[in-house]
Amino acid sequence: MRLGVGLLRGAGPLLRPAASASAPAPARPRALVYERHGEPADVLQLKDLELGELGGSGVHVKMLAAPINPSDINMIQGTYALLSDLPAVGGNEGVGEVIEVGSHVTSLKPGDWVIPGDAGLGTWRTDAVFTEEKLMKLPGDIPLLCAATLSVNPCTAYRMLSDFETLGPGDSVIQNAANSGVGQAVIQIAGAMGIKTINVIRDRPDLQKLVDRLTALGADYVITEEMLRKPEMKELFKKVPKPRLALNCVGGKSATEMLRLLQHKGTMVTYGGMAKQPVTAPVSALIFKDVKLRGFWMTQWKKDQAHNKDRLTGMIQTLCDLIRKGQLSAPACTEIPLKDYQIAIEASMKPFISAKQILVM
Amino acid sequence: MRLGVGLLRGAGPLLRPAASASAPAPARPRALVYERHGEPADVLQLKDLELGELGGSGVHVKMLAAPINPSDINMIQGTYALLSDLPAVGGNEGVGEVIEVGSHVTSLKPGDWVIPGDAGLGTWRTDAVFTEEKLMKLPGDIPLLCAATLSVNPCTAYRMLSDFETLGPGDSVIQNAANSGVGQAVIQIAGAMGIKTINVIRDRPDLQKLVDRLTALGADYVITEEMLRKPEMKELFKKVPKPRLALNCVGGKSATEMLRLLQHKGTMVTYGGMAKQPVTAPVSALIFKDVKLRGFWMTQWKKDQAHNKDRLTGMIQTLCDLIRKGQLSAPACTEIPLKDYQIAIEASMKPFISAKQILVM
Repeated sequence: MRLGVGLLRGAGPLLRPAASASAPAPARPRALVYERHGEPADVLQLKDLELGELGGSGVHVKMLAAPINPSDINMIQGTYALLSDLPAVGGNEGVGEVIEVGSHVTSLKPGDWVIPGDAGLGTWRTDAVFTEEKLMKLPGDIPLLCAATLSVNPCTAYRMLSDFETLGPGDSVIQNAANSGVGQAVIQIAGAMGIKTINVIRDRPDLQKLVDRLTALGADYVITEEMLRKPEMKELFKKVPKPRLALNCVGGKSATEMLRLLQHKGTMVTYGGMAKQPVTAPVSALIFKDVKLRGFWMTQWKKDQAHNKDRLTGMIQTLCDLIRKGQLSAPACTEIPLKDYQIAIEASMKPFISAKQILVM
Repeated sequence: MRLGVGLLRGAGPLLRPAASASAPAPARPRALVYERHGEPADVLQLKDLELGELGGSGVHVKMLAAPINPSDINMIQGTYALLSDLPAVGGNEGVGEVIEVGSHVTSLKPGDWVIPGDAGLGTWRTDAVFTEEKLMKLPGDIPLLCAATLSVNPCTAYRMLSDFETLGPGDSVIQNAANSGVGQAVIQIAGAMGIKTINVIRDRPDLQKLVDRLTALGADYVITEEMLRKPEMKELFKKVPKPRLALNCVGGKSATEMLRLLQHKGTMVTYGGMAKQPVTAPVSALIFKDVKLRGFWMTQWKKDQAHNKDRLTGMIQTLCDLIRKGQLSAPACTEIPLKDYQIAIEASMKPFISAKQILVM
């Protein structure tokens, strides 16, 4: 999995600013930059950038791989709740290797693998100098694609399964967009916890292929949005208890239908709105069924833990343990070289493409 | 306030079943009964009933006054989440005086005032034998109308102000249907806690009269539903912090607008749905603003405390203290004799009638 890392590491002196034009070209840091908000295909440009000064607290990181997540696209479009100052480097997730550290840096050393500790780092680039506190060290035995896709989706899945309802073996969870990055992580983490998953996906060409793939990941039940609304769902609940937790990445009818299936006093957590429709709850569900409607945003959670990093590092350890035990794998990925970013961006925005696009540097 | 109680108490032998027709007529228990669900005007009948046996654990209660609440109407219509077995006696709230107790009854004695400890008691009647555990003793110095209207609306207001957000002096709360029984209690209880109230009401003939009445109760701000949607609301929030708690008895647009004004991480509690429209929340409010949507039902809360009555009695004590200090009054009431129940029922179902209809026995 770490193939190629040695090559990247041996690519020559790396701290030279782009302005000093006398050195050989290949080491020059490149980044996917946007100077204004707009459609990624229009506004993203692969540019040479100067590398920041290492100073005392800087960490020079050679990026290895970075995924394209829906929130990355929304940030570039300018429609997300968190926007970077412009010009900005795209990407919020990924894994890199430490090349050199400043004299005051104590938690990292050359050769360590690191992931962003927070959103907004700009991971779609070959190299950067980040400050130590923006990075989290990863154990050295995690596969590259798992490492590159660890800090957003599996963390979101883990927190949503842990923080809203006290779930244990035999309980069930329902989720829509079950084939998303978060959805796949939910299937696996819930599986490791002994929690049954009811997974809702949109009907599509080659539906059975996706059903088989999610089942292979450990999905207990996979149903389509259309089936969700049918009375036949009653049959399902002869086999599995009604869910105490619903995870909603869609909104609109899909969310309302999941709400209808929740147990009394259950919780629906919304973490996305793919249908671009609000969440609608019958008054009776709130009053008489006592369901709770909540939201979750990993970026905010990380901000809230800024002065208590133990919960974050503890969660990363737990997720790495699951990876080592083979209970949590990376989502289906397509690796694309950074220079071919336009292919990756285009593919990431197509409907019904389940594979995550990963830029490799 | 206790005028007439002595007269009622002196009305002759009360435990005699209706079947023994030899005794004088006035003592015969009468009740507003419905044998099928439907419009109250069609299905309610004032009937003579036999009084149950006192036995060891029975408490013979002479009802003094009982309000007509919207949920009473919905129960009769058959549209409420809690329905009594038919035939049933209407009414869930009210105050009565203990006339006689069974030999095993320890917590009550003749002369005590009692209120229902739970929903479904059937309070629209002159007399009944209830079991001891269905009743709560009230301190003897509470005005009749306060006592008759204590067990549902002020309790709902108190719990919603206490159980969802930790509020303190200087915080603010927004509520719609602010002139409802619960709404008036919210204004007063929040006022006693030093919490500012933003009170939303529907526009109506004689609006100023209602504004003045709510202001006299202690409402800090009274606005109409139309004003709620206007940008001028910004001016209001120069004077008062944005609310951490919204109390929703309406649903639809009104709820969505209140949600928009909530502070980050604030809670909206739904306890009614007068607009007969669901609660709709933008996905972004849930994810990025981290607002929480909850529901509250006093009946369920009481059920949940069935094995721990201390919280219920503690709350009643607290509310009685507020009544004694003049910080919590009964809602505006119109007292109607039980025999004229049709007038009271009709008035209770009219729009824009703010006075609560109270049946007096």
